This record gives sequence, structure tokens and C-alpha cells, in this order.
Amino acid sequence: MDELTIYTLNNVPEMPRGFVRDLRLRWACEEAKLRYRVEGIPFDAKSPQHFEKQPFGQVPWLVDGDITIFESGAALIHLARKSEQLLPSDPVSEAEALQWTISALNSVEMVSVPWWFLEVTGSKENGLRDWFESRLSHIETVLNNREWLAADRFTVADLIMCDVLRITKVRSHGDRPATEAYIERLTARPAFKKAHADQLAHFAKAD
Amino acid sequence: MDELTIYTLNNVPEMPRGFVRDLRLRWACEEAKLRYRVEGIPFDAKSPQHFEKQPFGQVPWLVDGDITIFESGAALIHLARKSEQLLPSDPVSEAEALQWTISALNSVEMVSVPWWFLEVTGSKENGLRDWFESRLSHIETVLNNREWLAADRFTVADLIMCDVLRITKVRSHGDRPATEAYIERLTARPAFKKAHADQLAHFAKAD
Repeated sequence: MDELTIYTLNNVPEMPRGFVRDLRLRWACEEAKLRYRVEGIPFDAKSPQHFEKQPFGQVPWLVDGDITIFESGAALIHLARKSEQLLPSDPVSEAEALQWTISALNSVEMVSVPWWFLEVTGSKENGLRDWFESRLSHIETVLNNREWLAADRFTVADLIMCDVLRITKVRSHGDRPATEAYIERLTARPAFKKAHADQLAHFAKAD
Repeated sequence: MDELTIYTLNNVPEMPRGFVRDLRLRWACEEAKLRYRVEGIPFDAKSPQHFEKQPFGQVPWLVDGDITIFESGAALIHLARKSEQLLPSDPVSEAEALQWTISALNSVEMVSVPWWFLEVTGSKENGLRDWFESRLSHIETVLNNREWLAADRFTVADLIMCDVLRITKVRSHGDRPATEAYIERLTARPAFKKAHADQLAHFAKAD
């Protein structure tokens, strides 16, 4: 098996030490007894090379042979599939583990991290605006250079990214033409239109 | 193939119509030409039966034969694996699609939904507190009844849930003994301790 390489920062301030997300991948490798090494990258200068690997300028990312995968949650699922210790292979247990993995990322962390961020900054208004705008800008940069997020074709990644972005579209400030075009392109798909019309019809029955 | 059933609410107010997350699953089924039906459940009374299927009291969830899976992101990945149209099977493309799927859920939606929530409520302080506490309470209820989240054993779901929760532990208010014990049990694992010590050592090298 190819050796796994976890990329993280060389250095961070005192507070986040012990919490930087490379820990999730280290922990998974330790549980599954997977061979891995850790490579440090500079903290100060977020280089174009960094954004090429991680379009939000974050860490970690994982290299596994010819696969490079960012987002700690995605890298974790990728690692988990290598080991029964992390992810049971019987379909019922696997689905159960997957649902709780996504719960942690999208139901708990989706609230805990922004809550923590506002607590630390002591924000007296909607202190998530700049963060949100920065996410949108990174997405715009990515979509300026490609039609689809993955594999040069429509995938489930476009489906979910579009669904996440389309509610924010009308509320967002500033021009983001590539993102707007992406959302329009995806919501023009017959499958989206049917799903959308069906949902509206479903709720209309209740009126 | 068993027919797929998507469970959603019978009714919601006007505003979220067209955005309720069953749409993600409908859309995926339409793209992949998977047979499915939609079942409505009551809006007003969040029953114990509902919480049994979805411990945060949300929708949707998906039934696929003997598999019941909640979290729209998890159900989406489950569906995507059934179809090359949603998830390419070559490993590089699959990893790419997975990383962008998790990006949508854990980098973009993690900021966009709390931002949107504060915008709608016009919160003048950290308006995520109640939401966060409610998430913690639901987790506490779940952990009161079981040692592990999935499959009656340690899985990657515990690893990520623990990592998400442990930073909030010291900051959270109120007693949540089952959650505290869960975090203590998981962070006592040799694999966590090694990963944690290794991360601290990695950053200490920079001092």
C-alpha cells in the first residue's frame, strides 16, 4: 500500500494546538494501524500552491498515491473505507456510521463552530458575514476555472453545492458571476426542476 | 432493487418550500433514475417516533430496504454510490467528488446556514446559543442510551463526533454527563492519545 501523507501547517498559535484538524486523520490512521507520515507547510504565507491543494486555504489534506483529498471529513471517510476498524462493511452498520459522521459535520459542527467563533470574537452583530463572503469568494475563484467541481462532469458534489448555494444567492452581496452561472446551470437541469416542482406540489397538498 | 422511500414533513410554512432538504434526495433520485416515493409525516407534533428515526427532529430520512439513514448529506452519499451518474467509480474522481460534497456541507453550509439564521432573526448577540444547546441536548439523549453512535462498536462516527464535541466541552453550560463520559472514553483511547501527543510535538518543533 502507498504510504499516506497528511499535510498540515508547520506552526499555529498556542490555542488551536491539539485541535487542528490533521488530528482527525492522525487519529484514524492510529486506530486503523495505517502507515502515514505528516508533512508541514508554512503558516504565514498562504501560497498559490496551497490554494491549489486546498481552495479555502485550510488544512489538512491527504495524499494517498495518486489521490489528493482535502476536507478533513472527506479524507476521514476515505481513510475509513480502508479499515473495518473504522467503518464496518455490512451495509446497515456502514449506513449508520455514515449518518453519524455527517451528523457530526453538518448538524453539530455546523452550529458549534460558528457559535464558538462568535463567542471568541464577542460579535455584537452578524459576525459571520465576512467569513461567509470569504467562502463565497473562494468558490467563485474555483468556478471561474471549471464548469463542474469534480471529475470534469456533473456529480453529486455539484448537486449538493448548488443546493447549499442557491438559498444564499439572492441574499449575497457583490457580483459573483461564475457562481451565479453555476447555480443557473444546475437548477436548469430537468432532474432539479422535477424535484423542485414535486416538492412544491407535495407541500401545496397541505394548504 | 427495493423501492427507496424519502420521508419529509407533510407541511411547512411558505418560506422554506422549495428548500426543504428532501429536495436533495429527490434531485439525486431523478438524476440517477432511481425509483422512489415520498412519505409525509406530521409537522406540528414532533413525536417520539420521529426522534427515533431522526434524533435532531429534522427531515429528511431515507429508507432503502432494511437501511434507514438520516442526515441529507449521508443519505445523498448513500444514494450516490448506487449510480455512476452521481459518483464516478474511478478512485481519483470519486475522491474528488467526495471532497467537494463534504466542502458543501462542512465548509460552505457550516457558515451560510448560521449566517442566514442570524440574518433572519436579526440577532444582536450570539444568537446561536440556544440552537447549539439544543444540539447538545439531543446528543445527550442519544448517548444516554448507548455507548457508541453506530453498529454497537467504535467507528469513524465516534471519532469525528468526539473531535467535534471535545472543543465545546469546557465551554458548554449545564450538565451533560453522558456526553462528558463519551468524550472522556474516546479521548482515553491510545490512538487518540498518540495522535494528540504527536500533533502537540509537531507544533512544538516550531517554537
